[in-house]
Amino acid sequence: MLVSPISAFLNRLHERHKSVTDGHVADYIPELSKASPDWFGICIATRDGHVYEVGDTREPFTIQSISKAFAYGLALEDRGEEHVLSRISVEPSGEAFNAISLKPGSGAPFNPMINAGAIATCGQVKRTAGESRIQRILRYLSSCAGRTLDIDEAVYRSESETGHRNRAIGWMLRNFNIIDEDPHDILETYFQQCSIRVTCRDLAFMGATLANQGINPLTREPAIHRDYVDNILSVMATCGMYDYSGEWIYRVGLPAKSGVGGGIIAVLPGQLGIGVFSPPLDAQGNPVRGIRTCVDLAREFNLHLFNPSAAPPPALRRDYDVSFVTSKRRRPLPAARTLRNYGARIRVLELQGELNFSTVEPVLRELVRQAPYARHVILDCRRVTGADRISLQLLNTFATQLAAANPPVRLVYCNAALFQRELIAVGAAENSIFADTDAALESSEDLLLAELCGPAWRPPETVGLAQCQLLRDCTPDDVEWLEQRLPARRFEAGQSIVLAGEKASEIFFIGSGAVEVRLRLSDGQVGSRVDVFAAGMSFGEMAFLDNSPRSADVIALEACECRIIDHALFAALEKDRPQLKITLLTALARLVSANLRHTNRELAAMRT
Amino acid sequence: MLVSPISAFLNRLHERHKSVTDGHVADYIPELSKASPDWFGICIATRDGHVYEVGDTREPFTIQSISKAFAYGLALEDRGEEHVLSRISVEPSGEAFNAISLKPGSGAPFNPMINAGAIATCGQVKRTAGESRIQRILRYLSSCAGRTLDIDEAVYRSESETGHRNRAIGWMLRNFNIIDEDPHDILETYFQQCSIRVTCRDLAFMGATLANQGINPLTREPAIHRDYVDNILSVMATCGMYDYSGEWIYRVGLPAKSGVGGGIIAVLPGQLGIGVFSPPLDAQGNPVRGIRTCVDLAREFNLHLFNPSAAPPPALRRDYDVSFVTSKRRRPLPAARTLRNYGARIRVLELQGELNFSTVEPVLRELVRQAPYARHVILDCRRVTGADRISLQLLNTFATQLAAANPPVRLVYCNAALFQRELIAVGAAENSIFADTDAALESSEDLLLAELCGPAWRPPETVGLAQCQLLRDCTPDDVEWLEQRLPARRFEAGQSIVLAGEKASEIFFIGSGAVEVRLRLSDGQVGSRVDVFAAGMSFGEMAFLDNSPRSADVIALEACECRIIDHALFAALEKDRPQLKITLLTALARLVSANLRHTNRELAAMRT
Repeated sequence: MLVSPISAFLNRLHERHKSVTDGHVADYIPELSKASPDWFGICIATRDGHVYEVGDTREPFTIQSISKAFAYGLALEDRGEEHVLSRISVEPSGEAFNAISLKPGSGAPFNPMINAGAIATCGQVKRTAGESRIQRILRYLSSCAGRTLDIDEAVYRSESETGHRNRAIGWMLRNFNIIDEDPHDILETYFQQCSIRVTCRDLAFMGATLANQGINPLTREPAIHRDYVDNILSVMATCGMYDYSGEWIYRVGLPAKSGVGGGIIAVLPGQLGIGVFSPPLDAQGNPVRGIRTCVDLAREFNLHLFNPSAAPPPALRRDYDVSFVTSKRRRPLPAARTLRNYGARIRVLELQGELNFSTVEPVLRELVRQAPYARHVILDCRRVTGADRISLQLLNTFATQLAAANPPVRLVYCNAALFQRELIAVGAAENSIFADTDAALESSEDLLLAELCGPAWRPPETVGLAQCQLLRDCTPDDVEWLEQRLPARRFEAGQSIVLAGEKASEIFFIGSGAVEVRLRLSDGQVGSRVDVFAAGMSFGEMAFLDNSPRSADVIALEACECRIIDHALFAALEKDRPQLKITLLTALARLVSANLRHTNRELAAMRT
Repeated sequence: MLVSPISAFLNRLHERHKSVTDGHVADYIPELSKASPDWFGICIATRDGHVYEVGDTREPFTIQSISKAFAYGLALEDRGEEHVLSRISVEPSGEAFNAISLKPGSGAPFNPMINAGAIATCGQVKRTAGESRIQRILRYLSSCAGRTLDIDEAVYRSESETGHRNRAIGWMLRNFNIIDEDPHDILETYFQQCSIRVTCRDLAFMGATLANQGINPLTREPAIHRDYVDNILSVMATCGMYDYSGEWIYRVGLPAKSGVGGGIIAVLPGQLGIGVFSPPLDAQGNPVRGIRTCVDLAREFNLHLFNPSAAPPPALRRDYDVSFVTSKRRRPLPAARTLRNYGARIRVLELQGELNFSTVEPVLRELVRQAPYARHVILDCRRVTGADRISLQLLNTFATQLAAANPPVRLVYCNAALFQRELIAVGAAENSIFADTDAALESSEDLLLAELCGPAWRPPETVGLAQCQLLRDCTPDDVEWLEQRLPARRFEAGQSIVLAGEKASEIFFIGSGAVEVRLRLSDGQVGSRVDVFAAGMSFGEMAFLDNSPRSADVIALEACECRIIDHALFAALEKDRPQLKITLLTALARLVSANLRHTNRELAAMRT
């Protein structure tokens, strides 16, 4: 059985720290002192919901101060950033967690991670018609954990019975009008909030939710409004570990929050959440094993947020132009030659990953460099996983600039369904957004051909056998001979002409209309388009030549007239008209050879 | 002229804030008060050295407190992290910049960004035989800026004449043995350090150096040891903006440092550096326009470090197996068929970007998933831009596990020159590292073929014309006829057989030896290998068929015997032996067709 080396690393880390005996289990209320000092769990949850865990990761304990970070998120959602900031500052106080720490003058608590700030935060959470504050907080935390959490009633009663200092803080906050009502309900909410039961695994998922734009990676549901994720992480970063916060960021480098129940939650934004659980605490009230585990984890796994290796890979996955890679629509020879010679005027930039300022900036530089040589620029977004507003604004601003240039350059997008609405919201024209690369390429090719060759570039809609590409070297007599012998067949738009897997005994010469070739997917469904052929072209040569089954479906795009040559006739030629057979075989070999050259160029462009 | 939309955005930002008149130019020394309140510059430097700037970005001013962050880096390099931490803590103090703020008991300054901590930091910088402290600091900051900086002597004299409070701090630090000598030299160094002249552009580059693992993006030289970059950024993040630090991280979310000269430096780790210059300061001593500019910049450009859109693109660029993409060595038909049928046992995972815990973790998951179906796994690192130790350790741990599995799976690397030494340092065997993808594929194919077919899979070293792939359908009589007419030619190892661009009039049948086909690069140099042919195979068909110039060079890999058919003979066949010509043309068309099928499969694998 293969085991992830990450699990092996975590096991070793757990082994290393489980014998630590420093620190004391919190005992200011009897309920907390019942925790075993041996309990020790480590859990990592990735932003896409994968879990690595070791030790007591399923043991329930009370969340305590870790709840402060999440309740702060709910308060922000209820009241907005500026309102909450006017009541509760976000400056580290340099003081212990239970210090009263109100700012001189305003009486605003220094930050929401100390008790004063957390109680004030509770006061900002709204009651609704149907739900009390604690019900809303419980539901909010549950959606972050991805399961329904509950309250440890014994701990809550204990907290409430002994919470004299917090009551004093509550009344001081009332005195400064930081809270607007009798603090009783707020304080009880606060005691209950601290008594919510979680596991180490829950903490990892709550962290992964913060790492994942507020979307719970298990349930895929939005748990925290994405606008406030950075606010929560900011106060965790500067104030989350009491008066060890500075050294924590210095050594561990992850926004985090600890609780006297023994939990620590830490977040690597955009990447993962960490939960550690071990009840014995140090003098600053932080879990001893939790601190040491996170210090080692951050150093050994190189997770420090300011670690310079976290540079984003480039958003530009590759770029190519139409002189190497064309649309799937086969062009008649002169048009194909024009595209080969002038195709560099149609550029495709394939983007990948998240588009944001840092990843789009080099793309813009590349666009500035390439645009003077282009008439069409296609941004292929197939591998883009997301785009923020500024990245789309910057691209669209540049598109507008390009459209006004002389000569104008047309910038279009394809495969951008993921953020099509946002693109239009920043001003992109609907007709600049194409469903797929092929559609964008074909449209640009048509425009370029029209510009370079005038309307004449369009191939005739109907051609005789003599004009068929494969029969050009035949003598008039040969063509005449074939005319009399090749049966004609008509296909309606949408009709299947060839089915993948069929025995191949025919080459089709298209006299009018067009067909498309589509690969079969592994589940038997019709898949992506690989070719479009029109009048004067032929199809079916490859399977015809090597007697192998058809590799793809061919479907009439519009009504088609085809002439057909089959194996029997072709074999008979050897005796009847060896000259014609040699001519046909030479043309076939050349056609396949030309296709191979084209594919080789495309492959080279795809590889570099 | 195309202008980057980023410049347009910066211009608008400059326009918006240049009319702000709040704040006062520092006047505690007369020299500073000479600064114009109108000066205002904004500059962004990317991690690869690209610059966007607007306004007074070339105006010199004194660096002041911004120097503290860099001097701290030098102190860390001189004394190591633990020693420096024992003298200077890293906790935010919640107090003003000139507060004495020493920790009760130890007398250690709260952090290196307040004056007390910065003076103590100066004391940690070593004097060397040839250089004074200030000379070393000046050289250090110069290498961060990428140009030689100097000291504003008038400002320095003024600072020294009025620095009574700082002298008091110096003696307090002496009292607590935080500094071990008469503080005079340390204080003068500190005053000089604060008087170093920089521009807004310098600040942006100093920031970009911090963003770029300590390497100056202009000079490409290491300016800051990469081990200490995260330490510097951490103290900037928690303490860099005095008692506005918490709100700064909350609103801007970038490690930063301000100076009373009007400068602000901010860093988006791994991405970019920002410099803003504008002399008027607010009550906390931070530049007014600088703060507002950075708040807007961070919000509009979405630069907040905790912004959730900063998720790294996957390290796995694509994966494929040998049933789709083989090495360039053409195999005789039975071996080629075996590779087609069993090639899924050789998997290639193409990696990209920076390898670190977060990016390698999903790769490991994919490896755990795929390895049970594989005998060989090739990690193609061509597009990897860097790898940290943990990522290589995790990969190598997994490689060891795979080697011990039953049956064993062989994990190898290719294109890993960038971090080959580090790979070997974590225990990778030298013979598991291949120079390029093709070498890794060929080696794995050889092993798989030997495993499946025994030694018999190797093609014979010498074959007669009758065994040549292209002539298999010829009658013995035809072969006899060709034997007598096709001239033989011998080539020594390394000899050119065909040159790109030549007129093509021959097909070569290889009787013994092997040749390689190499593309010409645009500069005329011989480029990458695209094919290797051995005895029984032929080459040159495509150009022969369509009379086009040779598209690549062909070079003898070892001594070769070839038989050659040229156009004249081939043309003559039409009259002399039409039957043979038809046989040859059919074989040619089938061969090219088979190659096209192979290339199409490869292209499909490259596209998905």
